Amino acid sequence: MTAAGHDCSFLVDVVPEERVAFDEGTRESRAADFGAGEIDRGVVPDAVVRPESTDEVSAVLAAANERGIPVTPYAAGSGLEGGAVPVERGISLDLTRMDAILDVRPDDFQVDVQPGVIGDAVDEAVAGDGLFFPPLPSSGELASVGGMIATDASGMQTVKYGEVADWVLKLEAVLADGTVINAGSRAKKTSAGYNLKDLLVGSEGTLAVVTEATLELAGRPAQIRGGRAIFGTLDDAADAVFDAVRSGVDVARIELIDRLSAAMANDYLDTGLPDAPMVFVEFHANHGIDEEIEFCRSVFEAHDVTRFEIAEEAEMDALWRARKELAFAMSAYRADLVPYHPGDVTVPLSGLPTIVHEITSMADERDLLVPVFGHAGDGNVHYAVMVDPDDSDHVERGEALYHDIVDLAIDLGGTSTGEHGIGLGKRDFLVREHGTGAVEAMRSIKRALDPNGILNPGKVFPDDA
Amino acid sequence: MTAAGHDCSFLVDVVPEERVAFDEGTRESRAADFGAGEIDRGVVPDAVVRPESTDEVSAVLAAANERGIPVTPYAAGSGLEGGAVPVERGISLDLTRMDAILDVRPDDFQVDVQPGVIGDAVDEAVAGDGLFFPPLPSSGELASVGGMIATDASGMQTVKYGEVADWVLKLEAVLADGTVINAGSRAKKTSAGYNLKDLLVGSEGTLAVVTEATLELAGRPAQIRGGRAIFGTLDDAADAVFDAVRSGVDVARIELIDRLSAAMANDYLDTGLPDAPMVFVEFHANHGIDEEIEFCRSVFEAHDVTRFEIAEEAEMDALWRARKELAFAMSAYRADLVPYHPGDVTVPLSGLPTIVHEITSMADERDLLVPVFGHAGDGNVHYAVMVDPDDSDHVERGEALYHDIVDLAIDLGGTSTGEHGIGLGKRDFLVREHGTGAVEAMRSIKRALDPNGILNPGKVFPDDA
Repeated sequence: MTAAGHDCSFLVDVVPEERVAFDEGTRESRAADFGAGEIDRGVVPDAVVRPESTDEVSAVLAAANERGIPVTPYAAGSGLEGGAVPVERGISLDLTRMDAILDVRPDDFQVDVQPGVIGDAVDEAVAGDGLFFPPLPSSGELASVGGMIATDASGMQTVKYGEVADWVLKLEAVLADGTVINAGSRAKKTSAGYNLKDLLVGSEGTLAVVTEATLELAGRPAQIRGGRAIFGTLDDAADAVFDAVRSGVDVARIELIDRLSAAMANDYLDTGLPDAPMVFVEFHANHGIDEEIEFCRSVFEAHDVTRFEIAEEAEMDALWRARKELAFAMSAYRADLVPYHPGDVTVPLSGLPTIVHEITSMADERDLLVPVFGHAGDGNVHYAVMVDPDDSDHVERGEALYHDIVDLAIDLGGTSTGEHGIGLGKRDFLVREHGTGAVEAMRSIKRALDPNGILNPGKVFPDDA
Repeated sequence: MTAAGHDCSFLVDVVPEERVAFDEGTRESRAADFGAGEIDRGVVPDAVVRPESTDEVSAVLAAANERGIPVTPYAAGSGLEGGAVPVERGISLDLTRMDAILDVRPDDFQVDVQPGVIGDAVDEAVAGDGLFFPPLPSSGELASVGGMIATDASGMQTVKYGEVADWVLKLEAVLADGTVINAGSRAKKTSAGYNLKDLLVGSEGTLAVVTEATLELAGRPAQIRGGRAIFGTLDDAADAVFDAVRSGVDVARIELIDRLSAAMANDYLDTGLPDAPMVFVEFHANHGIDEEIEFCRSVFEAHDVTRFEIAEEAEMDALWRARKELAFAMSAYRADLVPYHPGDVTVPLSGLPTIVHEITSMADERDLLVPVFGHAGDGNVHYAVMVDPDDSDHVERGEALYHDIVDLAIDLGGTSTGEHGIGLGKRDFLVREHGTGAVEAMRSIKRALDPNGILNPGKVFPDDA
């Protein structure tokens, strides 16, 4: 991909010079994200600017907007779909210096943060008050809150608590022309005017740049227990997850791990997981947790569970660590293969057994390695097709399978992305998923709020015909 | 309020003639809603049209848009802020005939409905599958699902389960020019493109007309119990609610009722409630419900609860009936007084004791009758200032108090409306609550999606300066 450069020398008049970088090393470091891997998708921006306040973000955007210069927001760079990667050069707006936890209000279950703060830091800051941020993604030790808001991320606890959008109460954001707006309310619910807050959440920095967020928190339950269930087949495991949720088992986490994913985790972390499909579970309750676990066990037994082991706390930590690091484990698994590219689809719950079965069947038929895991209780399946980047035929077959999986998810009434966003990677599915009318409505909102099209251009929407 | 009439004779060419009404009786019936009461706020529309399909809604809007004729969507007419009441004549788009429950998918916890269906009918249709629609408002026996979506309504169970927006997965809607769009996904979560679904929820029919909704459902818990707690003072009751939620008591309903509200319910329903401030509670669990109730009791005891009684099922039904019918009971309480107009503000949880105390203090100081009740666990307080409509001074004093209460809620970091919408009644607070930048962003979205301004004109936004 190529794009013309832009004269960004004006930036040194807008923010202190030491926070504007034009050197090649800094600029190149903003041309890829975690998901880009071997398959490069971005271009090197013309400048990297690091604002430290809302006023500075506003000044940068106002100046860029006047000049029609593209601005691509960037923070942790941990995205998987290229959302933070420039495709039209211009300015990489690096928000990592805006990483303060501004105010914790435990009596309101609220914390105000800047967008560059890392997810785990939020949990650490509020743990002393007995609180936590429930929708934290598995990448919480890497990902910024701003990025989570940009993609409407979610995580292992979403099955019980909901996604990021459900836990963002209020945003301060800067529009393309530099106008600072407030969206949402510190009240737990509001019906006052259009829901700009949830329009901005998930808009991937194409409508505004978030500069502050009021997050809602949950109280830590009195009882937390968990463990793992081992199944004879992956189909049994998927059926068991579906049946547990359908039966009303109150799980806080219910994660599917196939044999290949388990092998990858074992190689990477020496975890010693069994060579079998598994379901990791965790329960949160004030009372009655043992009864809830037994309820879950009874459902799993109807699906030929081989073993169902409740873990000690240290063992649980090891299980969740194995699950969280699968993204790294995939990349490290084989010297000759890279994940093309780590995907995320979500289907209505009844479609979970079908999509899990079909992914593994298609992979077997086409002789491709595809680890399958994810937040199964939400119908959210993660997968990656492992391809040899030096073998174009292999890459092409991997790409075809990847596309077939997304098509299947949409055919099952699901979505091309449950939590990673469209970014660059899923743009070709947007119209297929939502239809022309809805995508045109999205485009008209984009034009209304960013008439010059400077904010994160090239993302979310497919290229104009 | 006056407005020029429009020639709507074209409607008989768009939908079958028998579903277009020009007679005065029908037209006048669409000029008020439940909240309008004695204080009239609307005008009589020029025509009432009753479409029976999405295609007919699309045809009506396309034809009205060509002609620049205002269209005000209407269904149950149970709103409290005038959202369904025309202020620019034109067409009242009556959706009551689109009241089908189209498809129940218990394995996905989903039901597809048309907008005219009444809330309680949804619960009845899915009860056989062990499911329910958790955010149903207290007016569920009157209110349409379309209206609940228009206002992002919520109800007594929102403290545990969330608001209507959280339980709407997908919408079919018609834009002003007749384009039919789909917003959202049947998947439990999606990050694919802009969240048009949550932009339409709460937009009060000013951006599109919803013609079909996929609602998410919850499984009925194995245990449901509830009862009432009686307190010596309203301050104690409000403190107890705050402390219970802050302490992590897992309540499914926690409703505050002041002495005046209790007296109104007794008069209206002969309920025999004690002459004291009360908190009605309900608990939902699979296991451990008795322990949760005892946890709640221990918190309430720290706030001088006088009695805490767990009720039999029949008694509970009577409690909830008393709570639900307060809106009627207020109107019936005194021949000489009417509620001006039933309000709904929401504050961050820690502000609950303050706002409850201040409302009753201000009412006492100004010698006005103000029943106070509501979904206290969300910080959501309902109130109405009782005024003599024939005494303009009394009405003026009532109006001033009403405004002071909303101002106080906003000062406490809250919202002018937690669940009833802006409609006509709260337009003057929109800029104060959100600021000019956000309201201008809302207006630009309105212009983008409805350039001729035909959809529910005069609502949500304050009149142009």
